[in-house]
Amino acid sequence: MTAPGGDTQRGIRRRNLARVLRTVAAHGPLSRPAVAARIGLTRAGVAPLVDELLRAGLLVESARAATGGRGRPGSELTVSDRGPAGIGAEIGVDHLAVCAVDLRGRVRARVAADAANRHSAPGPVLRRLSALLAGVTAQLAAEGLRPAGLTVAVPGLVARDATTVVHAPNLGWRTADLAPGLTGSTAPEGGTSALPLTVENEANLGALAELWLGGGAGRTAPPPDFVHVSAEAGIGAAVVVDGQLLRGARGFAGELGHVPVYPDGPPCDCGGRGCLEQYAGEPAVLRAGGLTPEQAAAHPGPGARTGLLARRAADGDAAVVRALHEAGTALGIALAGAVNLLDPQAVVLGGALAGLAPWVLPSLERELTLRTAVAGGGRAPGNGPAPEEGSGDGPRVAVSQLGADGPLLGAAHAALQGVLDDPLHSRAPAHSPRN
Amino acid sequence: MTAPGGDTQRGIRRRNLARVLRTVAAHGPLSRPAVAARIGLTRAGVAPLVDELLRAGLLVESARAATGGRGRPGSELTVSDRGPAGIGAEIGVDHLAVCAVDLRGRVRARVAADAANRHSAPGPVLRRLSALLAGVTAQLAAEGLRPAGLTVAVPGLVARDATTVVHAPNLGWRTADLAPGLTGSTAPEGGTSALPLTVENEANLGALAELWLGGGAGRTAPPPDFVHVSAEAGIGAAVVVDGQLLRGARGFAGELGHVPVYPDGPPCDCGGRGCLEQYAGEPAVLRAGGLTPEQAAAHPGPGARTGLLARRAADGDAAVVRALHEAGTALGIALAGAVNLLDPQAVVLGGALAGLAPWVLPSLERELTLRTAVAGGGRAPGNGPAPEEGSGDGPRVAVSQLGADGPLLGAAHAALQGVLDDPLHSRAPAHSPRN
Repeated sequence: MTAPGGDTQRGIRRRNLARVLRTVAAHGPLSRPAVAARIGLTRAGVAPLVDELLRAGLLVESARAATGGRGRPGSELTVSDRGPAGIGAEIGVDHLAVCAVDLRGRVRARVAADAANRHSAPGPVLRRLSALLAGVTAQLAAEGLRPAGLTVAVPGLVARDATTVVHAPNLGWRTADLAPGLTGSTAPEGGTSALPLTVENEANLGALAELWLGGGAGRTAPPPDFVHVSAEAGIGAAVVVDGQLLRGARGFAGELGHVPVYPDGPPCDCGGRGCLEQYAGEPAVLRAGGLTPEQAAAHPGPGARTGLLARRAADGDAAVVRALHEAGTALGIALAGAVNLLDPQAVVLGGALAGLAPWVLPSLERELTLRTAVAGGGRAPGNGPAPEEGSGDGPRVAVSQLGADGPLLGAAHAALQGVLDDPLHSRAPAHSPRN
Repeated sequence: MTAPGGDTQRGIRRRNLARVLRTVAAHGPLSRPAVAARIGLTRAGVAPLVDELLRAGLLVESARAATGGRGRPGSELTVSDRGPAGIGAEIGVDHLAVCAVDLRGRVRARVAADAANRHSAPGPVLRRLSALLAGVTAQLAAEGLRPAGLTVAVPGLVARDATTVVHAPNLGWRTADLAPGLTGSTAPEGGTSALPLTVENEANLGALAELWLGGGAGRTAPPPDFVHVSAEAGIGAAVVVDGQLLRGARGFAGELGHVPVYPDGPPCDCGGRGCLEQYAGEPAVLRAGGLTPEQAAAHPGPGARTGLLARRAADGDAAVVRALHEAGTALGIALAGAVNLLDPQAVVLGGALAGLAPWVLPSLERELTLRTAVAGGGRAPGNGPAPEEGSGDGPRVAVSQLGADGPLLGAAHAALQGVLDDPLHSRAPAHSPRN
């Protein structure tokens, strides 16, 4: 196994620069000695790295307020709020959105628009998105921020080249390379250099958002092994193992929506029968809940239809409550298979599904517990100590607090990873394929 | 992310030693310049590493035969056939086995014995196994080999401490630490230092054997992303991603046998209903094939009962043929879920299942194709080029050539990994937990 960047002096320096920047981003403000202690280098070893990051405008140094302790006041390092910004974009079935975050993780610009993207060709959709991107880029420039990368969330399968949408059934797109339609749209006025572009499945970005942001604001971070499930027009899932997305050989992993639940059930567009989407996908739940296509169409936009379902369920609409209960049962059966295969620490319900948790969760958890349980010969230890604290009874089920914001925030943070991985050379390759 | 061993001089030296040893093991005999070229170091950089490995007895040097080419004859490096040996052991429901392989991958010793282990306490089983181990160790000593590690394959779930069997239903073991019963059994006579010991699920070792050995002897190696399925008393699977086992949070990943297939089906010992084992596990298939428990009991030993099924099916026994067809259907449904979640390059049928492939495979492949297919909106690209060559239609299904030998060979090779990862310090920690 070769270390990233190899064992060359340059590779080692790059990794150490990344360690310093990530440490200050995660734990700053920090003094120089505190940075050195956290990454296990000497103060003398850290000093030139810090100086380089200061010169590049990625770190800033400020006088530390005296805290009443002994010793002279020193200086503290924080990441810059005027350096690079990650730009995330989202192409939904009936909306577009763009947001930008700085190295401190703050959202610095955000726009959204309704858009009838269902079965629209990529060209017009990307032109509208480019206009939104241009607005956000101009806003960033006015605040002294420069775009460092663009990540676009799409409701579909993305090839491992990371720019080609292989299949997005709800948009009607097949084998559509988004790079030509987006390259240049975020370049500085009159400039020609394009941003590094990555197109990514929205469920994957929702999971990354949960991984990176789930611990903020008093929430409990998901553990680094979890399955993240989101549902809107389709059902998507993402599998995170040791803090990394499991992508699959073609980049198509996480297709929970087409896991067979009742193998002799109704036919699915995918060619199979009784797939999870036939029971827990939004159209199936709306239908089972007695809502007409006209009622559904009157609620466009992200989360609007699931909001309608939640209101009806809260009002005691028996058909909707029953439909959500059945959806939870089907989700629990499909997730039981996933849990038996993957043994994650948690299952996280995200996206629009998070808002339906009160009605979906009881039947989901019942099936999951029954089908992954200890009783009578199951998978967790009997009388002995659990191999890991609190893990004796299989994974816990958690509800994401990011909800429908997950994919967009995940996209913006994903666009900053290039800077964090290689702080001084992050602008080089536009849409380079990922590993 | 930190490189293994960190960026210290010592860590770099250890990685380079490992690279040299693995390169010669995989591609030897090689000249010194050829080794340097393969690992991207200078000849001067490689020379001291080779010298250290020669002194440690891990490499040997011999005069190269003149091949009629220009230049003076040089010397060639190979791995030693008198150095360390990996010892693999297998605890089956009705047998025990031990084998040892040298750095060249040759089996240097092998013993097996029938044993009525079902519902026997660990103590007596481990005492018999220790006696077999002592015999193999003595045989190795006579040939100038020294045991470098012991890996034990068990039909059950193993905690991440890598010595505790959490649950092995067919043995009746729960939370049984095998280390006390095995420590010292392979120590040199009168010695006290124990070998590094690892206990591992047999399905995981079958998958590792496929990964490490599947490409030998003219066979096609499985790609580094695959799902390996084996079935004997239970059904086990192992998930390999990027050439690494996916272990799960508790080490319990790969429980394909308890993936729900028909959610309202017969109850399973695990507490669920309609699990795959209820349709494709050995007892279910024997029952569906009209074989009585007495007939089954008359065929003990690894692979004997599946051999019986194969002979009956080959003779045209309609009940057995139908039972295997139904087992294939259930396997196909469960694997369709796994493929949708994991997007592997291949599904490999291993263990005793390999011998039943002619009767199981057609219905298995039919379900898998139907439920992971392109048609009408599936997962692979439509008109455009496939994102990866030959991968357009989902994973291929392959049959392991290692068959029932996989777990034992995998165990022996696993026991050598410590030497290959850290050639000069591999004997230090006995049964240290894995990562």
